[in-house]
Formats: sequence, C-alpha cells, structure tokens
Amino acid sequence: MLSKSIVKYIQSLSHKKFRDEHGVFIAEGPKVVQELLSSAKFKCKIICALKNWFDENAPGNSAEEIFEMNEVELEKISLLKTPNNVLAVFYKKQHEVREINHSVSLMLDEIQDPGNMGTIIRTADWFGIKNIICSNECAEHYNPKVVQASMGSIARVNILYADLENFIKSNSVNIYAAALQGSNIFSMDTIKEGIILIGNESKGIKENLLSLSSKQITIPKYGEAESLNAAVACGIILSQLVYGNTL
Amino acid sequence: MLSKSIVKYIQSLSHKKFRDEHGVFIAEGPKVVQELLSSAKFKCKIICALKNWFDENAPGNSAEEIFEMNEVELEKISLLKTPNNVLAVFYKKQHEVREINHSVSLMLDEIQDPGNMGTIIRTADWFGIKNIICSNECAEHYNPKVVQASMGSIARVNILYADLENFIKSNSVNIYAAALQGSNIFSMDTIKEGIILIGNESKGIKENLLSLSSKQITIPKYGEAESLNAAVACGIILSQLVYGNTL
Repeated sequence: MLSKSIVKYIQSLSHKKFRDEHGVFIAEGPKVVQELLSSAKFKCKIICALKNWFDENAPGNSAEEIFEMNEVELEKISLLKTPNNVLAVFYKKQHEVREINHSVSLMLDEIQDPGNMGTIIRTADWFGIKNIICSNECAEHYNPKVVQASMGSIARVNILYADLENFIKSNSVNIYAAALQGSNIFSMDTIKEGIILIGNESKGIKENLLSLSSKQITIPKYGEAESLNAAVACGIILSQLVYGNTL
Repeated sequence: MLSKSIVKYIQSLSHKKFRDEHGVFIAEGPKVVQELLSSAKFKCKIICALKNWFDENAPGNSAEEIFEMNEVELEKISLLKTPNNVLAVFYKKQHEVREINHSVSLMLDEIQDPGNMGTIIRTADWFGIKNIICSNECAEHYNPKVVQASMGSIARVNILYADLENFIKSNSVNIYAAALQGSNIFSMDTIKEGIILIGNESKGIKENLLSLSSKQITIPKYGEAESLNAAVACGIILSQLVYGNTL
C-alpha cells in the first residue's frame, strides 16, 4: 500500500522543477524500466509495480523502495493514459560526452518535441552512436515523454546539454549540418568521425551554427512534402552517411 | 460569431463516429489547412480562423461557411493544446490506389499510433510514394492527430484500407517485408516496383503476411536499441531501397 506522501511525491515528478529538486526522473513500462535497471548508469530509487510484473521480475536490492500495488493505485501515479504494469523512479546522472574526436556523434539544435527527442535517442542507439550534444532549448532528456519514446536507450547514449556555438568552437570536429541546399547524402562517402547537426522541427539550424559547419548535407526530395520529421531525417542521414556504403 | 450548434458540431468531430456520420474531418494550423485547400482532392466545408489568418489568406469561395473568430472561440473548438490560427472542416474522400504495378508503394500492417501513421504519410510524400495500403487495424488517416502529423501530405498520398492478405493475393506485386532476419538493405539493389511492408510498432508483421512476402529485408543494427520507431524504419528503408544507389 502506497502512502499518500509517496503518491504526492511521484505525482510531483511530472514537473521538471521537482525532478530537478530531487535529482530523479520517472520511467514507465516493463521494457524501459528493465533497460534502466540493467544499466549500470542509473541507480533506482523506487519501483511501483503490479503483481504480474513481480511474477516475471525479481528486483532484489535494485531499488531503495519497492511497492506492489493494484491497478487503481498504479493509475493514480502513472503519467500514461493507459498505465502499464510498472513505474520506477531513478536518480539522474550527469552524462559525459566521450571520444568525440574518433567517432560520429549527433548534435541537436532546439529539438523541442519530446517524442522526436526520444525517437532520435533510440535511433542513435540503434546505429551505435554514443554521444548526443543538445542545445539548451532541446526537450529535457529526463522528461517522461522523452524517456518513454527513447524506449530505454537513454540508458546507453550519452547526452550532453551545452551552448552549441561554444562547443563547436572548443572542439575541432567536422560538423555536417542537415540543411535544404547541401550536398546530396546519397552521393557522399560515408564518414568515420564528425558531428551530424540536426535543426529545429520548423526553423531548421540557427545561422550562427550553420556558418560554423564544415559541410551542409541534404536528403534529396523526390516528392512534394515540404519537410521530413526530424527523427526520420536523423535516421536516414545516420543510415546513409555512417553505414550506407560500408557493405 | 459562432453559433452554439456549429461549436457542438465541430467538437463532435473529434470522435470517429461523428466524422463517419457526417463524412468530414478536421485539419488545423495554417500549413495543413493551406495544403488541403490548394489540393483538388478535398472540398472544404468550414473555415474558422483568427483575423491574422485572413490577413494572409483569401479563402474566397473555397469553403461553404467561413467564420472569423477570436482566440477564445477558436480555443473552444480546437483539438490542439495550443490552438493555431485556423481550423477547417473538409469532406472526406475515398482514396483510390493507382498504378500499383509500376511504382513502389507502402503497405502498413497495424500501425496504431496516429503520430507514426501521419509521419509515415509525410515521409512517403517526401519520397514521391503515391500509394499506401493500410490494414484495417491501422490508425484512421482522418484522425486529427494523423492529419496533423502528416503535415498536409494526406492531400497527395492515396491511402487505401484493405484486408492485406486479400490485397496481396489479388495483386501480383513483389512484397518486401521489413523483418528482423532479412536481407541487409544496404547490400540490396534498389527497386523500381513493388510494395514495402512495415509491421506493427511492437508485434511486427503478421505471420500470414510474412509468408506471402517475396523477400524479407532488414535495417542492420550497429548498436543496442531493440528496435527502431516504425516511421524512422520506413524512412530509412525508402531512402535506401528506392533511392540509395541511384545516384
């Protein structure tokens, strides 16, 4: 049985202010919770789950507090329209971006939609991208919707928030900026290192960042849609530029 | 000034039942509304917009009824959290799938998330794909969230709902099914005709459809994410299989 104070505490974590204050974030659903529990990266504070979750999972000492509850109780604390069978609270961790010079990384300029943000993290994880550098205007990676859309990939990808102009100036790495009038990605060689820069869903990449880029790159358009979804564009560019011609 | 009955009518259209009953659907935002207005495909029934929309658009006789309103009124009928400056009601139209034998089409098996569905329509439109055949369990293409995520591309792509097994059996077209253990798309030649089949977000493609497929295809995984978002997968496959090696 959950105490009122725990219910109130978990409910408060839908707000960034309280997540920041307590240094924690929420993850829901067996897939995402399992990915985070089995990752060495995040320490678990609370697990709240239905009996059927415990039947299949033995959390042992993996969380500080563990509560078995019924569906009505889980619904009370869940942020999902259709609650799953487990919700957990994890301690945040400062991500560190590493080996930026000898690998391909992503850089996101003002990706504001949490669904896009999470999907981009998941896509990066699929392609083995280790680092994502985000502008401070991007959706927060501990936003519950980002955690959800990442499907647990935040457990593996390092995500750093930074002033992108300063970051580019202080790291001598090639920047490949996704723009409308750049080189056709299908006629480019694959790259082994560098940063692929993806811009805001409607405004694209800021001028100051574009001018610091080494090369502008473009997904050629064969039809009539004005633009591609940012996460889809990201997937196409990664697949083509990093892996497209390697086989 | 909107009458109460119009407000009630538009509000009712958030439900499929009433959209079906009246044969109409809702589109919101200047980009989507403009795409649909300028398309010959859909006849417009009602435009509700703020003054600033009319300042930049001259709808003329393009709708049966036109209402200028203030923000409070628009908020009352809008389905968006942050209403834009225009909402319009269009008559539905039965889409027809054409020239299925001499082009590349998409087939979707139970894509249930409206955001994914709309994003896939938008991606298809970017790559010039004309036809999407959807299983009857897919999100409805006139669902307001699908219309929104398609960014107006439903004005250009033909979308047919069908029993996929019957459709495949009665059309002699090659089916390329996106699966986990198929041919690596990066080592395949591009295709000029055929249907690319994408499965449900978590369950994949149904067994009966897989067994009717000509070839199973796979996006190779270089990292650790368990799967890719359906719309991202769709974008990568289209880009690689239809356009990847043509340049």
